[in-house]
Amino acid sequence: MTRLKNDTLIRALLRQPTEYTPVWLMRQAGRYLPEYNQTRSRAGSFLGLCKNPGYATEVTLQPLARFELDAAILFSDILTIPDAMGLGLYFAEGEGPKFERPLREEWEIRDLAAPDPGVELRYVIDAVGEIRRALAGSVPLIGFAGSPYTLACYMVEGGASDDFRTIKTMLYARPDLLHHILEVNARAVTLCLNAQIEAGAQAVMIFDTWGGSLSHAAYREFSLAYLQRIIAGLKREHAGARVPAIVFTKGCGNWLEDIAAIGCDGVGLDWSVDIGEARARIGNRVALQGNLDPAVLFSPVEVVERETEKILASFGYGGGHVFNLGHGISQFTPPENVKILVDCVHRASPRYHGNNANTRAS
Amino acid sequence: MTRLKNDTLIRALLRQPTEYTPVWLMRQAGRYLPEYNQTRSRAGSFLGLCKNPGYATEVTLQPLARFELDAAILFSDILTIPDAMGLGLYFAEGEGPKFERPLREEWEIRDLAAPDPGVELRYVIDAVGEIRRALAGSVPLIGFAGSPYTLACYMVEGGASDDFRTIKTMLYARPDLLHHILEVNARAVTLCLNAQIEAGAQAVMIFDTWGGSLSHAAYREFSLAYLQRIIAGLKREHAGARVPAIVFTKGCGNWLEDIAAIGCDGVGLDWSVDIGEARARIGNRVALQGNLDPAVLFSPVEVVERETEKILASFGYGGGHVFNLGHGISQFTPPENVKILVDCVHRASPRYHGNNANTRAS
Repeated sequence: MTRLKNDTLIRALLRQPTEYTPVWLMRQAGRYLPEYNQTRSRAGSFLGLCKNPGYATEVTLQPLARFELDAAILFSDILTIPDAMGLGLYFAEGEGPKFERPLREEWEIRDLAAPDPGVELRYVIDAVGEIRRALAGSVPLIGFAGSPYTLACYMVEGGASDDFRTIKTMLYARPDLLHHILEVNARAVTLCLNAQIEAGAQAVMIFDTWGGSLSHAAYREFSLAYLQRIIAGLKREHAGARVPAIVFTKGCGNWLEDIAAIGCDGVGLDWSVDIGEARARIGNRVALQGNLDPAVLFSPVEVVERETEKILASFGYGGGHVFNLGHGISQFTPPENVKILVDCVHRASPRYHGNNANTRAS
Repeated sequence: MTRLKNDTLIRALLRQPTEYTPVWLMRQAGRYLPEYNQTRSRAGSFLGLCKNPGYATEVTLQPLARFELDAAILFSDILTIPDAMGLGLYFAEGEGPKFERPLREEWEIRDLAAPDPGVELRYVIDAVGEIRRALAGSVPLIGFAGSPYTLACYMVEGGASDDFRTIKTMLYARPDLLHHILEVNARAVTLCLNAQIEAGAQAVMIFDTWGGSLSHAAYREFSLAYLQRIIAGLKREHAGARVPAIVFTKGCGNWLEDIAAIGCDGVGLDWSVDIGEARARIGNRVALQGNLDPAVLFSPVEVVERETEKILASFGYGGGHVFNLGHGISQFTPPENVKILVDCVHRASPRYHGNNANTRAS
């Protein structure tokens, strides 16, 4: 495969020196872009986009054509894995993802098996290969999956939930059943991420969107332990290059030290924690990714720039920071504000790197 | 007024010695109780309950008739204050609270004024007096209000929100407007809590349900600063007794030290933080209230007891703990599990107090 022309993201995740702070945005290919919505209507649906490698490649590249992003991220959905397990993913209009057959009965749970990514998730792996070819080494491609616990939330609840009553009832009343689901999910995620790496993903990220809804003790037992298991099972080298792994638990500010200890290269931060304080706590072990409140992108230019610069300054001098939002970009974001953000990171960050940084830090 | 027969809650909040750990539950008068639902249908609606002191008294006392709770909490709603400001509170079936006239225009915001609790919130103050008389000194009555930022979320969004897009756009683009709303809200909350104290509330609590959705910096500027202002303006003594004040921000684990510094007596904890760690961080300055995951109450008896005992053990020996859930009780909770929880706290906690505690701690 082609050598990377811009490997700033990879070096930042490995806490190596970079010339500036790399930037990409969670959900950077998405509904805030008119060209995305056009492709989506051609595809007929969101799942139509995910399941067609040609469309997935097209929308993955769209934000890179507009903005000087330092990474592409595979266009897909975390729920493709449970869909491949046979749960029947669908999107009810205006209601978010749902499963036709949520996991409730013990026999259904006992029957659950990790899908073969080369078969049931072929379209994901094909998309990774096609996107890599289309990128032609310009920037790295990030592969991803959902965390075992976050996937289980949707699989057990049957969709989004505001109280997670069904899965938490299972967690406290039948932890054995939940552990079984999580084991299968961890195996499925490991297989899928490794297949993405073999197909060309140059970094991988695990999204633990709902781990933060757990108690401190339950988080460690039911989410973090499985994240650790996945990290231990990942191919961390491919085609002669190190493949960094990022873990993101929304609402993880209390638990940073525990997350940093599971062997990942990068930890994603939401906006509830000051990135400078997070660096002081765990920056000697992992790179940090984040942490702008996505709502800042609804603001005037000067506010977008001010809030962006605050995060760069709070992280401070030297490598190990990947600029990002603290959660996925909102569909209501004006695209021109994304350009302001990306350009601001590139313009304002070099002073924290290279010779400037050495001079200032000494 | 009658002297308190059971002042365990008050002493625990003031970090004075107690014989056991007092317990009450957020939203303890609520839909999980069949008798509550009966009164509610007689009243015609939730607002009908809130606005009628007789009904409010009836439902406030219902959980005390079933369980050996160490406090009553006024039955009311945090949105009665913005309703009294003229925003037109209503409850759409199955959709939660809404305002007919959300705050969007600058002139509407400039016109906002704190209601006179003796006039526009007369029904709240009357309920406090009536409940105090009905309690006859058995246990203390807790008064409450919403935090200025949490109220503003509903006032600006017009109802519940999953992204707080409207208020956060205001926060970043027009902070002056949001600060004006928050100043009026802080004044209104201070007036209302002081009126509740004069009418007989023996402790007060401020619910900051949505402060945790803010960035670390925005939380301090737009939520905590106004909580501090309220605490500074509260009557902390009434009828010869100290009136403790509790502050609860959901999702506050990162910010405990800052909350403990604003002058409150107690800090409410959700379930994302270990109460023993929280005590080590701020327990020399404030009492702690919490922090059982409400979902534990969907579990079998032995799990309810085990998780309850874990929290008592994690807090450890000595006073300064008020047992509670980490958020409001779910409407799907089996009432018999509440009895198990309350009885477990009373049975298992004395070993951490009094002579036992002195012996064990020495």
